[in-house]
Amino acid sequence: MQRHSKCETPECRAPMEKVEEVLAEALARIKPSPEEEMKNKELAEALARRLQEKIPDEIKVELVGSVAKGTALKGEGDIDLFLLFPKEKYSHRDLAIIGLDYAKHALSPGAKWQIGYAEHPYLKTKVNGKKVEIVPAFKIESSEELGSAADRSPLHTQYILKHLSEKQKDDVRLLKKFLKRLAVYGAEVKVEGFSGYLCELLILSSGSFIKLVEDARFWREPVIDLEHAYASETEARKQFSFAPLVVIDPVDAERNVAAAVSETSLSKFILACRSFLRNPSLEFFFESTPKITPEKLKEMRKRLLGRETPHDFVMRFKAPNVVPDILWPQLRRTARIFFDRLNAAGFEVFDYTYWTDEKKSCIIVFELTVHSLPCVEKVVGPELHHIEGVEDFIKKHRNPFAGPWVGGNRLYAARKRRFTRAKDLIDYIAKHPSEFAIPKNIAEFLPNYKRLRTPSLLKPKYARFMYDYLYKRHYYIELY
Amino acid sequence: MQRHSKCETPECRAPMEKVEEVLAEALARIKPSPEEEMKNKELAEALARRLQEKIPDEIKVELVGSVAKGTALKGEGDIDLFLLFPKEKYSHRDLAIIGLDYAKHALSPGAKWQIGYAEHPYLKTKVNGKKVEIVPAFKIESSEELGSAADRSPLHTQYILKHLSEKQKDDVRLLKKFLKRLAVYGAEVKVEGFSGYLCELLILSSGSFIKLVEDARFWREPVIDLEHAYASETEARKQFSFAPLVVIDPVDAERNVAAAVSETSLSKFILACRSFLRNPSLEFFFESTPKITPEKLKEMRKRLLGRETPHDFVMRFKAPNVVPDILWPQLRRTARIFFDRLNAAGFEVFDYTYWTDEKKSCIIVFELTVHSLPCVEKVVGPELHHIEGVEDFIKKHRNPFAGPWVGGNRLYAARKRRFTRAKDLIDYIAKHPSEFAIPKNIAEFLPNYKRLRTPSLLKPKYARFMYDYLYKRHYYIELY
Repeated sequence: MQRHSKCETPECRAPMEKVEEVLAEALARIKPSPEEEMKNKELAEALARRLQEKIPDEIKVELVGSVAKGTALKGEGDIDLFLLFPKEKYSHRDLAIIGLDYAKHALSPGAKWQIGYAEHPYLKTKVNGKKVEIVPAFKIESSEELGSAADRSPLHTQYILKHLSEKQKDDVRLLKKFLKRLAVYGAEVKVEGFSGYLCELLILSSGSFIKLVEDARFWREPVIDLEHAYASETEARKQFSFAPLVVIDPVDAERNVAAAVSETSLSKFILACRSFLRNPSLEFFFESTPKITPEKLKEMRKRLLGRETPHDFVMRFKAPNVVPDILWPQLRRTARIFFDRLNAAGFEVFDYTYWTDEKKSCIIVFELTVHSLPCVEKVVGPELHHIEGVEDFIKKHRNPFAGPWVGGNRLYAARKRRFTRAKDLIDYIAKHPSEFAIPKNIAEFLPNYKRLRTPSLLKPKYARFMYDYLYKRHYYIELY
Repeated sequence: MQRHSKCETPECRAPMEKVEEVLAEALARIKPSPEEEMKNKELAEALARRLQEKIPDEIKVELVGSVAKGTALKGEGDIDLFLLFPKEKYSHRDLAIIGLDYAKHALSPGAKWQIGYAEHPYLKTKVNGKKVEIVPAFKIESSEELGSAADRSPLHTQYILKHLSEKQKDDVRLLKKFLKRLAVYGAEVKVEGFSGYLCELLILSSGSFIKLVEDARFWREPVIDLEHAYASETEARKQFSFAPLVVIDPVDAERNVAAAVSETSLSKFILACRSFLRNPSLEFFFESTPKITPEKLKEMRKRLLGRETPHDFVMRFKAPNVVPDILWPQLRRTARIFFDRLNAAGFEVFDYTYWTDEKKSCIIVFELTVHSLPCVEKVVGPELHHIEGVEDFIKKHRNPFAGPWVGGNRLYAARKRRFTRAKDLIDYIAKHPSEFAIPKNIAEFLPNYKRLRTPSLLKPKYARFMYDYLYKRHYYIELY
């Protein structure tokens, strides 16, 4: 990565002692105690032994994830056990049936459990209050063997165990917490952020948390290729041209570990890095004022009721019964369809957002700059040299209002506007979801949407979300 | 010009007999009688003789223009006499002083006269009720001699006299009337249309009025080069790349005779040609229903008062005391500045127009799709990699409303909107014309503009103009 001399002025950069002081304090708060680490390790190993005793020897139990790698945050080390099946003897179907069957041997007597679905089904339970996941997968030795992302997990753990130093494990913890505070930790669709494995690779790449933060300030379409799998950054970029951040998987050069990171998530990280070095503080790791105060509520109420601010329109509808990784992208797509249609119809949208509790309800919020329009609109017609097009346009747009008329080298006409109020268009889309390609799970509940009025938005359930949306105050910009 | 086979179907093309019938009837109405032509010729020659007797022999009097060329319309043949000074002996200053002095010899005793200003000053008067212009100019033999457009006029007359047949003179008359009806006859800035000389060249190029109308239907960036002064149309196009219509002057290859023709004027002509051949009628030469009926007035009143149609905003201000060829472009530019500023500020303009009686008042009319907006607006900030830009943006846009915030790879912010009502912005521009580069003659009177309300617009003075503007009904589209 190219180093820049810009932004190394005192104004852009706090003294290193101050940075180190903040990091030491943050680390003290987030690093598990040796006892906690020991307890997690022991619990994981006991579970692994119990499983291994009850299943054929050819299937290997392997501890992966942050507990295995020693990069977990205090109180958060989930236990991830993989059951590795030899590919020669078992099919995908076997993994789903026999695999889950074997996994159940890990359950404590009478314990509750759930099936999760990723590339294969897997088992989720709790043991002594700790989250445990038991994942059947195929054993692969290298990425040349075809396998799913899950199958590669043990290879990731091995790579990190081999390369990450003890000091760097703490740096990974700092990075994870820094990203959590930014709400961009996690590769799930809802978050569009950084996975734990990605954090580990970023620390390996820059060497330390501080060095990563220094580097990331100047990132522009960054490419990280630890094992030099590609001849150059440019070559690697070609392979993943649409990804905002490219981090080549050291165990599989075909895979971008950062594929889930959206442009906005990456931008937040870059800005937060700049801001942190200008003005280091614990605020970058821990939220100091999470509560919506009565004053804030009052301010919000005033604003939401104000006539001069953009016109708020809030839709609520029932959440379909699908997993979050399906629900969030469908909700995002739905909001985007409304946004595009409103803009195209002349109802300028100042901003919009969406949210779901993943269980009961979804909401979509629009702030409309324009919410009503005259009953006529201008239609842009063909250029004159499209002779048949001109004829059709003239025939189609003869109307009592005006024109068609000539301007420059094309025709124009006026026509009755189909929707003169934004509300009417929103209603129409909600009632005809298939006409607008609304995702099918959402489409089922959209026609019965309710418009939420201001008082409902101030309920505790929505207040924080609405506050963040309306004011868009981010600590990393406030502290810049 | 490439011939197209399209649009030769019966639907697109009336029978030729019908076309010829209409043209014969139109010609009968517009062609001067032999007596009228004779009288004009005799008057012109008598004036020329009288002048020639009173000025030195080295200065030649020459009859130019439509009377000389025999292409005048009934009742409209103005008499244009040029006084041609030898370049070797006279200066520009001489032309202005001695030239005008000599020109006055043509005046009838006690006749009124005016000075007109083109490239040189010239004299305008009336003799026996006929308009007469006497124009001092330099005598040039060919375009190689540098000279003004006025100096070339005698060469134009000679070229047309040499090439135009008797039959084609009638075709020129038809074309002039056809263009007058379209309001695109005349090269003055107000009209942005076709000069008489251009009409003559177009008839020479196609051969007849009918052939021209047939050709023009398919024009697309047309180039006409009668004397093949350029190697190809493409070469000629290069020389005049921004002109919608290029007609190379046969006596000066450096000049585009059609330079004044705007894209809209050209488009109107092309469409009218298509429409005429589909549905030939005298309507293309003579307006059948020029009167604004009481019903139309009632309809207009209803529309102008309607709440659902675009919001009309009509400004009236005093016309500056300048010639029309300066007033119209300044007015056009002024209207355009308002239009651009309104759109840029979020007040979408459905359509706008301007008008002046060239003496007392100017008006500018806007139809606003959006005339009021919320008190905040979104500001698009720099991309993240502009490090100093990001810093400045954050510092500048910290405000109580919202943000700055990150979206994609750039920053956004909210700010107080400067003008929440279109009227306020219009007032501001009108009061600060120099800040917006409003042309100086208009700038003097703009600050005292008055907003005209609907009843004023229905006064006879404006009613026709407002009707045409609001309804944009054009016979050539109605008849298509």
